[in-house]
Amino acid sequence: MTTPNTTALSLSQIETLARDTLLANGCNTANADAIARTVMTAERDGSTSHGLFRMPGYIAGLRSGKVSGIAEPAITHLSPASLAVDGQMGYAPYTLEKGLPLLVEAAQKMGIGVMKLTNSFHFAALWPETETLSEAGLVGIACTAFKPTIAPAGSKTALLGTNPLSFSWPRPGKAPLVFDMATARLAKGDVQIAARDGHELPDGTGLGPDGEPTNDPNKVLQGVQLPFGGYKGSAIALMVELLAAGMTGDQFSYEAAENDNNDGAPPKGGELVIALNPAMLGGDDWQAHCDGFFERLEALDGVRLPGARRHQNRQDTGMRNINAELVEKIQGLKG
Amino acid sequence: MTTPNTTALSLSQIETLARDTLLANGCNTANADAIARTVMTAERDGSTSHGLFRMPGYIAGLRSGKVSGIAEPAITHLSPASLAVDGQMGYAPYTLEKGLPLLVEAAQKMGIGVMKLTNSFHFAALWPETETLSEAGLVGIACTAFKPTIAPAGSKTALLGTNPLSFSWPRPGKAPLVFDMATARLAKGDVQIAARDGHELPDGTGLGPDGEPTNDPNKVLQGVQLPFGGYKGSAIALMVELLAAGMTGDQFSYEAAENDNNDGAPPKGGELVIALNPAMLGGDDWQAHCDGFFERLEALDGVRLPGARRHQNRQDTGMRNINAELVEKIQGLKG
Repeated sequence: MTTPNTTALSLSQIETLARDTLLANGCNTANADAIARTVMTAERDGSTSHGLFRMPGYIAGLRSGKVSGIAEPAITHLSPASLAVDGQMGYAPYTLEKGLPLLVEAAQKMGIGVMKLTNSFHFAALWPETETLSEAGLVGIACTAFKPTIAPAGSKTALLGTNPLSFSWPRPGKAPLVFDMATARLAKGDVQIAARDGHELPDGTGLGPDGEPTNDPNKVLQGVQLPFGGYKGSAIALMVELLAAGMTGDQFSYEAAENDNNDGAPPKGGELVIALNPAMLGGDDWQAHCDGFFERLEALDGVRLPGARRHQNRQDTGMRNINAELVEKIQGLKG
Repeated sequence: MTTPNTTALSLSQIETLARDTLLANGCNTANADAIARTVMTAERDGSTSHGLFRMPGYIAGLRSGKVSGIAEPAITHLSPASLAVDGQMGYAPYTLEKGLPLLVEAAQKMGIGVMKLTNSFHFAALWPETETLSEAGLVGIACTAFKPTIAPAGSKTALLGTNPLSFSWPRPGKAPLVFDMATARLAKGDVQIAARDGHELPDGTGLGPDGEPTNDPNKVLQGVQLPFGGYKGSAIALMVELLAAGMTGDQFSYEAAENDNNDGAPPKGGELVIALNPAMLGGDDWQAHCDGFFERLEALDGVRLPGARRHQNRQDTGMRNINAELVEKIQGLKG
């Protein structure tokens, strides 16, 4: 089914479009495959703002020379529980593909493990990495920073990134419980999409360039976004900034803004991924114990498990309706 | 300075009052000292709801026989990075006193470490443990659950505890950045104090027994509290519940309610504490790197670093004005 402004593409066509465009712009196969898979899974799950919508940005970074399409990550074991993965100035998907299996191994043996990613460009959601951990029976926590777009609670000046935090809990035999949320009231991609589509923003999303609250996405894009949940949400955003930048040694949001060439690709940044092993820590019956809790949670009126909608979208293996202008634009980037 | 309804006590008098009352109710010295110190530091920092206010509850648990005053924690190394600390049915402060130095050691060597506390009764704030980690140069993350008092976003039925989360970031030579917050809109202790003092609650704190929003603390105590920050805060509260109960193998909030004797002491529960070592992960210049960020944060109009008010209160080594009725009540518990 195609509506006037969309083009129907299969998941495989989406992946091929992304991969071919990346290959035509200097990516090697390893990097193009990893990025294209990440883009396809976002469209598959209905995470539109992390799907093909990101392709012009990915290509811009390759064309400006800021991001390497042929990066081969360098991995250092800092300890049996701690990994340092240097992305060598490439996009994050391939770096994660190389690092995550080692983090899984570390957490399986040690009960907990941590992986820091540096010199990498993260432009996707975080649930692909936390879900990968949960597919291996682990709990995943991941966070990253960005450029200053969020004013800490009490202030009108942007200092923090939209600073997403993802958490995934394994449910062997079932889809994991996964959340992946900007610690901003709204993700930046969603503000951009609202601007593109002419939609109003929910209250509390941000302030205009005059420092006053507004529902106009264009004004918020010129002003500042706000954290979710007032002072408490602001504290969570601050925690993410410190873990993603202070703990990795990569750029804080303000440093990213100072050093970025503003080509439309994300700035260089850090990511911190923590994995925990419930089979070691939670006792032999951890899974049955947690199932008892999930049953009660799912039985509540009005409650949907985080991640459930994405996993439901995933069941649909059919065509996806993609913004037609976007598809044309990406086709044009192959040349 | 004494106002009509308060009694002025020095910090040392506060600690002695707590210790003597605990000793008179079956605690051994190790447990009484650890709890009394925790109570004193709460009053010192102005965390009234975790200070002497908790003493009647501590004593109730000892008198009902639910909590052991002579517990000696049992510690197991699950791996070089993972510790299991069984509180042996005692209060958490002494258990933490024994476990935290081992967690510090693990995180210093491995870059990250985790400690699960089980069979323990947690009735204090979480910042004493995360700050202890930061005094050793580490980042601390701690969380615990309680009885169901929070309705997950979308529901009107309590399933989650007020589920506090604490985070501490070390700033060698300075007070660490520390937050310690209920993932409820308001901590339960604060709702109880509002009820005692006849104050109204802020909007969004909770629902009355009729399922309708109310600012009356007595109605909220009979109804349900709400998470902070809507769906996103609710996801954080859920993460805390899973880490504190699913990952430790101790009771979920609903299990705690089912099994507790409601003596006024907290239910048996788990706590998860994670420590990260920025000196291993963040690079040689991690401290200067983070100072650059903190300078920008502190320079913003309207922003106060989390934990700053507590650390400012701590500078005052003088008398504290304690609710006079409370002091009399505690004196009466010595007999």
